[in-house]
Parts: sequence; structure tokens; C-alpha cells
Amino acid sequence: MSNGTMSQLTPAPDAWNFAPDEALLGLSALSVRSVLGSIKAGMDPGSDRPVIPLGHGDPSAFPCFRTAPEAVEAVSAALHSGEHNSYPTGVGLEPARRSIARHLSLDLPYELSPDDVYLTSGCSQAIEIVCSVLAGRPGASNILLPRPGYLFYEARAAFNGMEVRYFDLLPDSDWEADLDAVEALADGNTVCMVLVNPGNPCGNVYSYDHLAKVAKTARKLGIFVIADEVYAHLTFGKNRFVPMGVFGSVAPVLTLGSISKRWVVPGWRLGWIVTNDPNGVFRRTKLVESIKSYLDISCDPATFVQVTDPCKFLQR
Amino acid sequence: MSNGTMSQLTPAPDAWNFAPDEALLGLSALSVRSVLGSIKAGMDPGSDRPVIPLGHGDPSAFPCFRTAPEAVEAVSAALHSGEHNSYPTGVGLEPARRSIARHLSLDLPYELSPDDVYLTSGCSQAIEIVCSVLAGRPGASNILLPRPGYLFYEARAAFNGMEVRYFDLLPDSDWEADLDAVEALADGNTVCMVLVNPGNPCGNVYSYDHLAKVAKTARKLGIFVIADEVYAHLTFGKNRFVPMGVFGSVAPVLTLGSISKRWVVPGWRLGWIVTNDPNGVFRRTKLVESIKSYLDISCDPATFVQVTDPCKFLQR
Repeated sequence: MSNGTMSQLTPAPDAWNFAPDEALLGLSALSVRSVLGSIKAGMDPGSDRPVIPLGHGDPSAFPCFRTAPEAVEAVSAALHSGEHNSYPTGVGLEPARRSIARHLSLDLPYELSPDDVYLTSGCSQAIEIVCSVLAGRPGASNILLPRPGYLFYEARAAFNGMEVRYFDLLPDSDWEADLDAVEALADGNTVCMVLVNPGNPCGNVYSYDHLAKVAKTARKLGIFVIADEVYAHLTFGKNRFVPMGVFGSVAPVLTLGSISKRWVVPGWRLGWIVTNDPNGVFRRTKLVESIKSYLDISCDPATFVQVTDPCKFLQR
Repeated sequence: MSNGTMSQLTPAPDAWNFAPDEALLGLSALSVRSVLGSIKAGMDPGSDRPVIPLGHGDPSAFPCFRTAPEAVEAVSAALHSGEHNSYPTGVGLEPARRSIARHLSLDLPYELSPDDVYLTSGCSQAIEIVCSVLAGRPGASNILLPRPGYLFYEARAAFNGMEVRYFDLLPDSDWEADLDAVEALADGNTVCMVLVNPGNPCGNVYSYDHLAKVAKTARKLGIFVIADEVYAHLTFGKNRFVPMGVFGSVAPVLTLGSISKRWVVPGWRLGWIVTNDPNGVFRRTKLVESIKSYLDISCDPATFVQVTDPCKFLQR
């Protein structure tokens, strides 16, 4: 450096005070993105062997998968208007929340309100928020996760100091949850169980009857269900998709979703947390208030992406 | 509900297992957005008294403040290309990181590399990430914050289990940091101090000499400096803005910034964390690795916003 500051310096400290968060360093191994990044970095760029990209759940990387031109135009119009450059509200803009509430209500026996919907920066932030608001009892709370499953849940739960317990999905029963195992695993510190439907990574679609049993098990245990429905309605077999929210009056359900998969735009970063809870359990237990509080001290999806009407395009 | 599930239900549990995170509920009071929301919700919509909006630091709400048309066109082109709908990489896309590194290097005595730059969803996620990676020693680490200051730091530090200690900014010395107080407050568990420059909420701009003293104090204490420069170069007085990174070889500096203020687009949600650390302290202490790990289990700015060239517009 050319300035004079350096000459008067005390020697560098023997040790700087900030230590690495060793726990955090290990959590990268639970991220699909991180593992894929490591694999790609280890590939021989000179090799002429063909590589088939099977990871990431992101068809948008391929030119044959493009979202609806109307969706692009809607976001572009919001951007060009100059009227949506401001900070969004914590919970998300009302038109998009109304659109998502209306869309999801089509499959439910009750009507969701826009106040049931919280916009997030993709489904990954939805998972982050849910795990963060459950961190109230560090070292004590536990969460039940499906195996095989989506490891991002484990990473966020562990980061927030929750214990993770796994129940098996049963290959011979179309990957249904082993609900006996769920009951055996749960104790007074169990707060919720996660069910991914349509299943990631197994690709199964749960029947109405199995979801009803999941809800009854949750009710019996006094826990709620996190229904990861990010692949909702993207089904190819004979089973019709039934949202877990259908059973929201049996046990309260937080539904997580996003436009990433159905719009084929994971990079637009718009997801949601939805309270399926006609009995108001989430309100009484202040889980709703916790989510709002976390949103006040967190980041948001881009405002001009929020002003679009996801419902309109989701129903194509 | 019309289906038969309800009739066979066990009674609702006396108590559900999930408790509110009471600590989290209190943190909303530290969020400008949350406080403004409460004020607005309490206003009488029928009143004809004029209301002057003084909160939020967000001029983009007013039609006379518009970003550069070229910036809008750049984002729009990225959106329309359909080539930037995929998940971004954890650290952010290389062109934007290169652009930001080049831009910030103009004011530094050394050259930043794109690998010094981590893209975030606005500066608020940058604060969230820094507080999260410092959470390795829950109950033990402490962070030194300026008073008056930006309370979002306290909210995130508290959420991550860090102790917050305040040093005063001195009104009679153009809001310089009371560095004697900094030394008196610090102990072996102090990991960093925050300096906001240009100052929020005081509007001051720190001199080269004061920043040099801040760096020397940090070096002496073995801590690093979080330089919140989200208002960089937005100065109106006689003082020229000097980035804290100028002193990165005295003590390592994490610079936080975003396009929110200078582009007048807070709703686009693009910010950054930059390591100003020619001596490689952050690499040796694994802070860099912690940041990368956290980014692997976190959310991102929209991909098509990342492909723009912030440098180009920042220099207008």
C-alpha cells in the first residue's frame, strides 16, 4: 500500500478472535447444489465422454423447457412500469397472496384467505423460515423427516438447533410413510413431521387415504404437518394429486410450494408458506406470529416478481 | 367438511406440541419495516390530514425517482432471453461478481477478485448471513454495534444467539465512533464491530483518518470490521466517501452493499458481501468457507437480476 498507515502498525494478532462455525461447514454436504457443484468442479473439462445432467431438478437449463410467454410479459411489464421497485412488505404483496390462496383453494374443502399465504424467496426460504421459527427450544425440539428425502430440511433443522429423527418411506407400499415408526419416534418435544408429495426423490403420489392417516397420526401426537408440495400436480402416474391441506381440520398443515417447478422458473425465486388450518391452531399457538416476525427480519422475493398473478399461469 | 374423515376423529389434543418462539416475536420491534407497518396500520384512512412519508429509506416509491432505463432494459433482456431462469449458484453468478469487484476496486489500493464477492438477496440478507456464520459459539460471541444505528443488526445477532454490545457515535465529533468505548467493551469473545458509512441514521461521512483509527483498533483487538456501505458515494457534504476496505490489510473488512440505494431499486433484491482482506485472514479463519456453506443452505437473488452488470450503472 502506498499510504503511510502501514508503517505505524502493531504486529498482526497471534490469533484473530473469530472462529469458524464448524457445524455450519459440515451442512454443505446436505445441499444438492453444493454436491452438484463439487461434482462439476471435479469433472475433467478435456474429457470427450458425454455427460447426462441428472441432478438439480431444474429443466429450465434446457432450451426446450420455457415458461409461458405471458408470465415473462407480466414480470416484464411490472419491471418496466417502475412502480414495483420498492421494498415489498414482509408477508408479500397482496395480489400474489390472493392469487395463490384462490388457486390452492380449488382443491380444498374450505377457502384459504390471502392472510394464509406468506411469500418467500423460493421454497428453500420457506423451509428456512419454518425451521427458524421452530428453533424456540434449542436442543429440545425435534422434527420428523422422511427417508429417503430432501436433505435441505436436515441442514436447516440442524442449523437451527433442532434434533432430526427419520421415519422410513416404504418401497413396497408406494413409498408411503411408515406411520408406526412416526408414532414410535415422536415424543413430547416433537413439533412436526415433513411429507413431500409428490415425492422427492421417489416420484410417488400419495393417495387420499394415506394422507388422511398421516393427518390422524399428527393429531394423535399433537404435531403439525409440513406438506412440501413444490411438485404439486406434476404427476405422471395413475394417482391424482391430493393436497395435504384437505386434512387441515384434522391436524394443522403448513403447505410449502413455489412457481419453480410448474412455471419452470426456479431462478425467479418465488415460493410460499400457506397455513391450512381452519381451526386456527397456528394462530392460537402463535406460529403465525412467529412466521411474520421472522419475515420482518429476513429477505424477500423481488417485488416486481411478486406483482404477477401466479394463479393465472398455474392453471394453464 | 363433506368427507367421512371427520366422523372418526379423536378429540383435538389438549395442547399442541409446538410452542411459539417468544424471543423471535420480540425481534419485530427492531425492524424498520415492521414498525412502519404498525404505524401505517394505526393510521385513520378517513383522515384528511396530509402525511409526509419520512420512513423506510426508499425513494423508489415516488415517481420522480426512477432507476436508469438501461438497467431496466438489461434485466428485461435477461428475463426475455429465457436463459436465466435456472437456479443460481450459491455464491452468485460470475459476471455480476466480477462487475462488483471491478467497481469497488476503483477506490482501493489493491484489486478485488470476483471470488471476494458473494451475492445476496439485498443487504438485509448480507446482514443475516454474516450474523449466521458468527453464531458458532452460542451465548459466547459478542458483536459491537454503533448507537445510534440500524437495529436490524441487533435483531439478527440476537436471533443467532450473539450478545450485542453498543458503542456510542459522538455527535460533537461528526458522529465518529467512540473508539475508547470500543476497546473497553471488547473482550476475547468479541468477533467484530459494525461501522455504517455513510452513516445511517446520522448521515455523516467518515474521514480517511477516522477509518484508519477504526482499523487499528480492530487489529489491536483481533476482530474484523463489518463495513455497511449500502449508501456508498451517496454523499452531500464536503466529506468524500472512503471505503473501509482501504484498510483491509490493517484489519480484515467485510463490506456489505447493494444496488438498492444507488440504483433506487430496493425491491430488486441484489446485495453483496465483499471480503476486503489482502492478507487472507478470512480464508485462514475459515470465515469465507462458512459464508459459502451458509449460501448453500440459503436463498438467492433472482437469477435474471444477477446477470446484469451492476458496475456499468453504478458508475453513471
